[in-house]
Amino acid sequence: MKDIRKRIRIAVIGGSRPGRQAADSAFEVGRLIARAGAVVVCGGLGGVMEAACRGAREEGGFAVGILPGGSPAEANPWVDVPIATGLGYTRNALVVMNADAVIAVDGEYGTLSEIAYGKIHGKKVVGLGTWDVKGIVTAATPDEAVRMALEGLAA
Amino acid sequence: MKDIRKRIRIAVIGGSRPGRQAADSAFEVGRLIARAGAVVVCGGLGGVMEAACRGAREEGGFAVGILPGGSPAEANPWVDVPIATGLGYTRNALVVMNADAVIAVDGEYGTLSEIAYGKIHGKKVVGLGTWDVKGIVTAATPDEAVRMALEGLAA
Amino acid sequence: MKDIRKRIRIAVIGGSRPGRQAADSAFEVGRLIARAGAVVVCGGLGGVMEAACRGAREEGGFAVGILPGGSPAEANPWVDVPIATGLGYTRNALVVMNADAVIAVDGEYGTLSEIAYGKIHGKKVVGLGTWDVKGIVTAATPDEAVRMALEGLAA
Amino acid sequence: MKDIRKRIRIAVIGGSRPGRQAADSAFEVGRLIARAGAVVVCGGLGGVMEAACRGAREEGGFAVGILPGGSPAEANPWVDVPIATGLGYTRNALVVMNADAVIAVDGEYGTLSEIAYGKIHGKKVVGLGTWDVKGIVTAATPDEAVRMALEGLAA
Repeated sequence: MKDIRKRIRIAVIGGSRPGRQAADSAFEVGRLIARAGAVVVCGGLGGVMEAACRGAREEGGFAVGILPGGSPAEANPWVDVPIATGLGYTRNALVVMNADAVIAVDGEYGTLSEIAYGKIHGKKVVGLGTWDVKGIVTAATPDEAVRMALEGLAA
Repeated sequence: MKDIRKRIRIAVIGGSRPGRQAADSAFEVGRLIARAGAVVVCGGLGGVMEAACRGAREEGGFAVGILPGGSPAEANPWVDVPIATGLGYTRNALVVMNADAVIAVDGEYGTLSEIAYGKIHGKKVVGLGTWDVKGIVTAATPDEAVRMALEGLAA
Repeated sequence: MKDIRKRIRIAVIGGSRPGRQAADSAFEVGRLIARAGAVVVCGGLGGVMEAACRGAREEGGFAVGILPGGSPAEANPWVDVPIATGLGYTRNALVVMNADAVIAVDGEYGTLSEIAYGKIHGKKVVGLGTWDVKGIVTAATPDEAVRMALEGLAA
Repeated sequence: MKDIRKRIRIAVIGGSRPGRQAADSAFEVGRLIARAGAVVVCGGLGGVMEAACRGAREEGGFAVGILPGGSPAEANPWVDVPIATGLGYTRNALVVMNADAVIAVDGEYGTLSEIAYGKIHGKKVVGLGTWDVKGIVTAATPDEAVRMALEGLAA
């Protein structure tokens, strides 16, 4: 685990109240990121965030949660390193800032803000059943999404 | 001017490199906001932001610019109250937080992030030749945009 | 009032629960800043912040309040331009960032953080019955504090 | 390493240009934190921050670095999880927000701001050759500092 700093980091963004299918997709995305040896970065709360962290954990991976509130304790149980910010939704910008690429699953306006910040900061953004925004690439399955996100990134 | 606190505040968001037509629209939007007795809030820099502030100034209005950098001096010349934040693009969230409604003119990903934050914070977002996003209302002219933004807001 | 952008800005920082004497000092500091044609910048809430804004208002001056919460409505009644940040106490850094010099009156740890940020950002910090910190200059009266703060600043 | 979430977190704060003795103290503090099974949280850059991370690494520990800039790559080589914020010095507030207790070694105004935020957020702050501020407890050695910081915290 001492090499965690060197791993690729993939942000998984998405809503806190996904439907069953989106939650399953997020879990699978998290699992595949971990299997590829990369770290999950997310907003640390529930829904898509929690599903991705749980997926990473199941595969023996690692998850960072960048939280809106001022207490690390508000992170979902599968976050390994919770980071409190006290910035509220403004923390969305920090989630994608800490990733080499971004996968968006489902999501509402919070996710849209993170997609926008992903592009502002020049990251590749892969969409999986999410907002249709110019400049993001679209995947049909979790497997395709993770492959697209990792493509061209050297560990 | 002592009553400035009581005025409605309208955020005008948009790109820093608009084409001629978008810049003209932003100027007109700023002018009409001022004519209605409301305050322009924006990101304080160039392009759409500057045009809106210049329009407000021409009409004897008032403009607040919430800046990405750490120095108030970076504001465009038509900003009356520049607010330095040092937050970089993360300041986008603060621009819409300080408005009763939002008008988006043209714009790139920065504008998209502000549209998203407008909706996150429950503000009405009016689009004028900008991103086509679910939940925003679309105007065809500056006049219509300003009327839509002000509708239902009591000074 | 159109020239407000060109005015010197002085941050008045201090606790939200000052004693009578500190509140009186803050009021007088705000009044003298306004009389000198400068703008009061503060954290926008109660106590020292409110007293300074009220002093500025009495003298026909102008006050900016940079707030911890997400709503401009939480500002004290004497703030002319409230700026919501949603950053919580982290907004303290922004208060001094928006001033040419800083006057600290009374205060607890929040004030200490603002004194520190004043020095981090290279501003002159004048203390009036506040923390005894290396590098700040000490005044005995509101009049002396305001003169010290304005000294060397060109409007 | 899967249990990293459950570990106590101690912030080590201090200047980026410490003298030899302060750097040695910070290294020892980091080492002792790691030996106690706790995580080092710091600002992620050089000087005291780097020495503490290096100490933690030497003991097989773990270090989180909360950075001022927008790129995780700016972290010192001993940070395990770098968190980019893009907030500049305003990120100081986030460093202590993510710790159960704080140890200040040496330091200038940045450290003073972090001591203040430690107290604002109700954390125990232990000083080791740093600012003399009301409300912090003073240690004479790294060993004493770490013991004081850990006292009363349950893993």
